[in-house]
Amino acid sequence: MLLMGESINGTRKQVAEAIQARDAEFIKTLATDQVAAGAGLLDVNGGVAGGDEVADISWLIETVMSVTDMQLMVDSASPVALDAGVRAIIAAGGKVPFINSISGEQSRIDAVLPLVEKYKCPVIGLCLSDEGIPPTAEDRFAVAKQLYDLCTGAGLPGEDLWIDPLVMAVSADSTAAQVTMDALKLVKERLPVRTTGGLSNVSFGLPNRALLNRTFVAMCAGLGIDGAVLDVRNKAMMANIKAIEALRGEDNFCGGYLKAHRAGILE
Amino acid sequence: MLLMGESINGTRKQVAEAIQARDAEFIKTLATDQVAAGAGLLDVNGGVAGGDEVADISWLIETVMSVTDMQLMVDSASPVALDAGVRAIIAAGGKVPFINSISGEQSRIDAVLPLVEKYKCPVIGLCLSDEGIPPTAEDRFAVAKQLYDLCTGAGLPGEDLWIDPLVMAVSADSTAAQVTMDALKLVKERLPVRTTGGLSNVSFGLPNRALLNRTFVAMCAGLGIDGAVLDVRNKAMMANIKAIEALRGEDNFCGGYLKAHRAGILE
Repeated sequence: MLLMGESINGTRKQVAEAIQARDAEFIKTLATDQVAAGAGLLDVNGGVAGGDEVADISWLIETVMSVTDMQLMVDSASPVALDAGVRAIIAAGGKVPFINSISGEQSRIDAVLPLVEKYKCPVIGLCLSDEGIPPTAEDRFAVAKQLYDLCTGAGLPGEDLWIDPLVMAVSADSTAAQVTMDALKLVKERLPVRTTGGLSNVSFGLPNRALLNRTFVAMCAGLGIDGAVLDVRNKAMMANIKAIEALRGEDNFCGGYLKAHRAGILE
Repeated sequence: MLLMGESINGTRKQVAEAIQARDAEFIKTLATDQVAAGAGLLDVNGGVAGGDEVADISWLIETVMSVTDMQLMVDSASPVALDAGVRAIIAAGGKVPFINSISGEQSRIDAVLPLVEKYKCPVIGLCLSDEGIPPTAEDRFAVAKQLYDLCTGAGLPGEDLWIDPLVMAVSADSTAAQVTMDALKLVKERLPVRTTGGLSNVSFGLPNRALLNRTFVAMCAGLGIDGAVLDVRNKAMMANIKAIEALRGEDNFCGGYLKAHRAGILE
């Protein structure tokens, strides 16, 4: 399972402050902590309200790349910042990054598809259209199919499109998580893409969110989800991930699980 | 999800001692504790080594039925004890019980299928043949299909056959859990039966078994497993189940989850 570390995100208060203050040590620690915790990819989002996002994401990328050569994921609402981020990484000799994200919204397709075509970047595809997040699994699948057609048409291998079926809060709609799982199942069955998700929305408004979040990750893992966007520094979540990897046969002789046990991560 | 309480089992030392000593209070407490914890069915196994299993299971059933009218599951390696148990329950006016279990072993088919035909009892069907537990998901599915044909041929509705795809320890074979999940998926896709499992074998030989067990239940729940044989008195497992039910949309407005939170079960 590809663990996409979510912590370098300018929409979070502490990170926004570090970006504004150009506190490189804070950002470097966020990067190295996530690498040490087992991330396989680092999301980098420079979206500080009122900031200069191109300058911010460029500084973030440079800072992160000074301490790790792990693959990055450039995450922005701004196509200009996405382009600048991808260029900065490639210019510095880094691995071609992921782009977070494209969706079925026309404005997003117009802005991001050219970047996918130009850089052949792996890309997150959100099951979201101009009408919002479709309420049914079939309609979310339809967005996934549209993105698959567009991205492969632009020369991207299907396996580099990472579909996120999206999830809403079960507190607002009891069927919210099941619709996401049904959409995930359809995508896994019908499209040669990969799948991921930022799954923590599911628990919004409920007590013990961590329990719901890690249970939902396990349920999606049973359905074969290929990646997840999460806080790899959360010990209980990582214990859950180690168990998932052992149970999916992705951990030969349970070596990673036993190592995590010896390191005290499973307690 | 149908929670099959596993605790009244004569192969466990404390329960065996209680059966031998005819300690009714101990058994009654096991029954009422499981009902209070949220079981939807109580497994009753009188298999004490060297005991008179027909007498033992009859006493167990009478004892349990004195404190609860919850549906029971008669569990025995002995067809005579199964028959005696089912008869005792029906004679006492109880709900038609489950039988645990039939399998693809010819001797078991010969012994248990007539009981299924006679009583139309819901029955657990183990994906196990005379050659043992098939190593591939397709071969486990083949046993499930054979049991489906036999049981429906004997007049049992398909939905009353509860297929257990069986699981071995991942410590011995890294693919063990994934094979079980693949078999579960095939059964869910192709047969109008229900599915369940005693899933705790999966963690045999590894540290923090509880973590692996509850993660595996969640992964199987993502795939749509309909029931599970488990210790409903285990708080961490029940927290996991409450999260699963909320996430599968089986818990309107998350009422059960919130109630469990207020009762302190989710901590």
